[in-house]
Amino acid sequence: MSDVQGFIDENLGRFRSELYDFLRIPSISAKSEHDDDTRAAAEWFREKLTSAGLDAEIIETPGHPIVVGEWRGAGPDAPTVLIYGHYDVQPPEPLSLWDSPPFEATERDGRIYARGSADDKGQLYMHVKALEAHLATGSSLPINIVMIAEGEEEIGSPNLVPFVVEYSRRLACDVILISDTGMYAEGLPSVGFSLRGLAYFEIHVHGAVSDLHSGEYGGAVANPGNVLSRLVASLHAPDGSVAIDGFYDEVLDWDEATRAQIASLPHSDQDFASTLSVGELTGEQGYGTLERLWIRPTCDVCGILCGYTGEGAKTVLPNHAMAKVSFRLVPDQNPGRIKDLLEAHIETLDLRGVTIEVQELHGGRPWRASVEGPAFEAASEALEEAFGTRPVPMGGGGSIPIVVEFEEKLDATALLVGFSLPGCNLHAPNEWLPIDNFEKGIGALALLYEKLARVG
Amino acid sequence: MSDVQGFIDENLGRFRSELYDFLRIPSISAKSEHDDDTRAAAEWFREKLTSAGLDAEIIETPGHPIVVGEWRGAGPDAPTVLIYGHYDVQPPEPLSLWDSPPFEATERDGRIYARGSADDKGQLYMHVKALEAHLATGSSLPINIVMIAEGEEEIGSPNLVPFVVEYSRRLACDVILISDTGMYAEGLPSVGFSLRGLAYFEIHVHGAVSDLHSGEYGGAVANPGNVLSRLVASLHAPDGSVAIDGFYDEVLDWDEATRAQIASLPHSDQDFASTLSVGELTGEQGYGTLERLWIRPTCDVCGILCGYTGEGAKTVLPNHAMAKVSFRLVPDQNPGRIKDLLEAHIETLDLRGVTIEVQELHGGRPWRASVEGPAFEAASEALEEAFGTRPVPMGGGGSIPIVVEFEEKLDATALLVGFSLPGCNLHAPNEWLPIDNFEKGIGALALLYEKLARVG
Repeated sequence: MSDVQGFIDENLGRFRSELYDFLRIPSISAKSEHDDDTRAAAEWFREKLTSAGLDAEIIETPGHPIVVGEWRGAGPDAPTVLIYGHYDVQPPEPLSLWDSPPFEATERDGRIYARGSADDKGQLYMHVKALEAHLATGSSLPINIVMIAEGEEEIGSPNLVPFVVEYSRRLACDVILISDTGMYAEGLPSVGFSLRGLAYFEIHVHGAVSDLHSGEYGGAVANPGNVLSRLVASLHAPDGSVAIDGFYDEVLDWDEATRAQIASLPHSDQDFASTLSVGELTGEQGYGTLERLWIRPTCDVCGILCGYTGEGAKTVLPNHAMAKVSFRLVPDQNPGRIKDLLEAHIETLDLRGVTIEVQELHGGRPWRASVEGPAFEAASEALEEAFGTRPVPMGGGGSIPIVVEFEEKLDATALLVGFSLPGCNLHAPNEWLPIDNFEKGIGALALLYEKLARVG
Repeated sequence: MSDVQGFIDENLGRFRSELYDFLRIPSISAKSEHDDDTRAAAEWFREKLTSAGLDAEIIETPGHPIVVGEWRGAGPDAPTVLIYGHYDVQPPEPLSLWDSPPFEATERDGRIYARGSADDKGQLYMHVKALEAHLATGSSLPINIVMIAEGEEEIGSPNLVPFVVEYSRRLACDVILISDTGMYAEGLPSVGFSLRGLAYFEIHVHGAVSDLHSGEYGGAVANPGNVLSRLVASLHAPDGSVAIDGFYDEVLDWDEATRAQIASLPHSDQDFASTLSVGELTGEQGYGTLERLWIRPTCDVCGILCGYTGEGAKTVLPNHAMAKVSFRLVPDQNPGRIKDLLEAHIETLDLRGVTIEVQELHGGRPWRASVEGPAFEAASEALEEAFGTRPVPMGGGGSIPIVVEFEEKLDATALLVGFSLPGCNLHAPNEWLPIDNFEKGIGALALLYEKLARVG
């Protein structure tokens, strides 16, 4: 292993430089005008898998393609690890809030600033480099590798499950290893035990045939902006819980041990609020901040657009209003059922004079893991060796909808080992990844591959 | 008078062509990038006043200038009529909904389609042509005229009251004549008896230092979009009334005679709803549609912007949300007091984790007139002669905030005689004015000037 770590140490500068090429490609899967860029990112990534020593190809889907890399040198009796990540990124808007260009990686304060640095190009590329270190040094890597990098994670992975089903024999594995999460704190590595699911909707309220003069018509004609505000407001009760009938029916109570473990983690509400520049934290009554983030479901409006939003006072009664509303889900909630509940909820509102349209844009089930077992232990050991600190089990507030699907379709265990840090601006301006985590993390992953020999 | 009407009839084609030149100038007062256009409209209008036979000049203000035209040929003992209108227009957005270019007047189905055709360039220009008809034919016009055209009506006339105060001697008059309203129905002319006031606010909700990942932070951090929705929703009670404490304290009950007169007007809720393509009308319980529009106050959101509103699903927890909220006011409500009440109302909400900023963009007091008296009667006679139908007294849902100020500062009676029609898309795409009303209206105004001799 010393050769492997030596190779990594010698090549860190090149690894970063290559990552910056990857980050330069604006592979924004949500925007069709970036389809060429998204494909370019897939092509780039396939070439890097090949030069790292894997057999790699691009497999088409009805949407953005999937890159598959394989190394079967450990032989048919060795365990197989499937490494999953994504080469697509979130839109960078609002651009004016970036301190450096989102698609030009910039090093500042020991961090790599760029869209995708943390989510997920940076972390995905760490695996490529850890594999390269093994294969270039002839380390007798004791596991087989299948790596898949998709280009639609940020738009809900619509084509990944069909792909996994179609290629299930080729993707057969013992462990699904994913680096798309973070560490609990700087210097404190973590292994994931939960992810929230997601149900994301776009809600349209339609009124009159055109925008109207708010004086000539105001008071007698339903205002879609007012109706939409009422609709969004109705989604919460005053205690911060979600006020949709039946929303909590399938929420599992977590065991006291998990809640106790969460409570034992170092955490300060004041520091957390201060980092975000908010006066105080707020959320569902009866739960602490980490519980609100990891084991409780939410409802957040992600965007609203209605009427005139330019400079000055336009006295218009808008004829249309739109909100993007996302629910984060916890076991055993299901996005399909949330859509039914949401639509039933909307039916209970006063909708005279308007029509409502609900589009489901995105859905994914929540995930929950056992913190025992050989894969979790292998990850804990590898992280401790690389970072010098015993990792903590960590919940995840975000969603990687494919995790549940992978486990079910491939009958394997998911293992989440991530290297971003709290406050790294995922999905926001000035996304960053610590250079130190990028470098130590490559070593940790290289170690982890060796330790995963035991999961066979 | 037959010479005057003859002159009008002979020159109608030219009058329209000149109006189309006026409409071609995008004098959008709300948008600073159109400041040059707004000034160009003032220059154009001044020249037309001069060629009509008035002494005309442009008077600067801290904002857009005011054009003043005068004709004092009736002598010091004759009454003076101040004609007021505005040469600025609303923004044309959304442009995609216009069937013909907003600043290229297009005749279709007997209508002039263009931004400003009805509000107010078309109606303002009718006065210029009615005056030209008198002055060109040497008709011995029995009243003196002061005409003022401002360029800031659509942004709340911030500089008009100081102007009226500064020039009050020059503007001294017996009647303030305004054509910025409409007729009750096609072929049914009207004289205005009320206008609603306006209080227009931009409300900002600020949250964390930047947009956040809705998974990593959702549930523990206040979402400005959710808070704003709750704020806007809280402005109405379930019965459709405005739920701000004290909002109705200064609302005068209208007399039974006025309510009976309103009830006697031809009106069909079904037709009204059908024109707008809405399933049904809705509003404050206990009032009919015309009452809701004319004699009851309202609260309408005019625009909302928050978070990500582009294509697809961006899972962002926004750090900012903005709403433009307008209140239409009725006697004796006052916009300044509404701001205080709104701010006090907002203080009662759950605002943990956010800060709120309320900007007042626009304010104007409501107006109410006596339907008796010589000016009202002169207008009724002139309209009946020109249109062949006895006019009806009509309330106004919109606001011309300067009306109350004019009456108070100049100690004169306001008279509202307008020629647009319901459904003419004021402040909306495809604004129009009937060609027939433009033409008959010029004759009606020419007659009205003669009949106003009696108000002295």
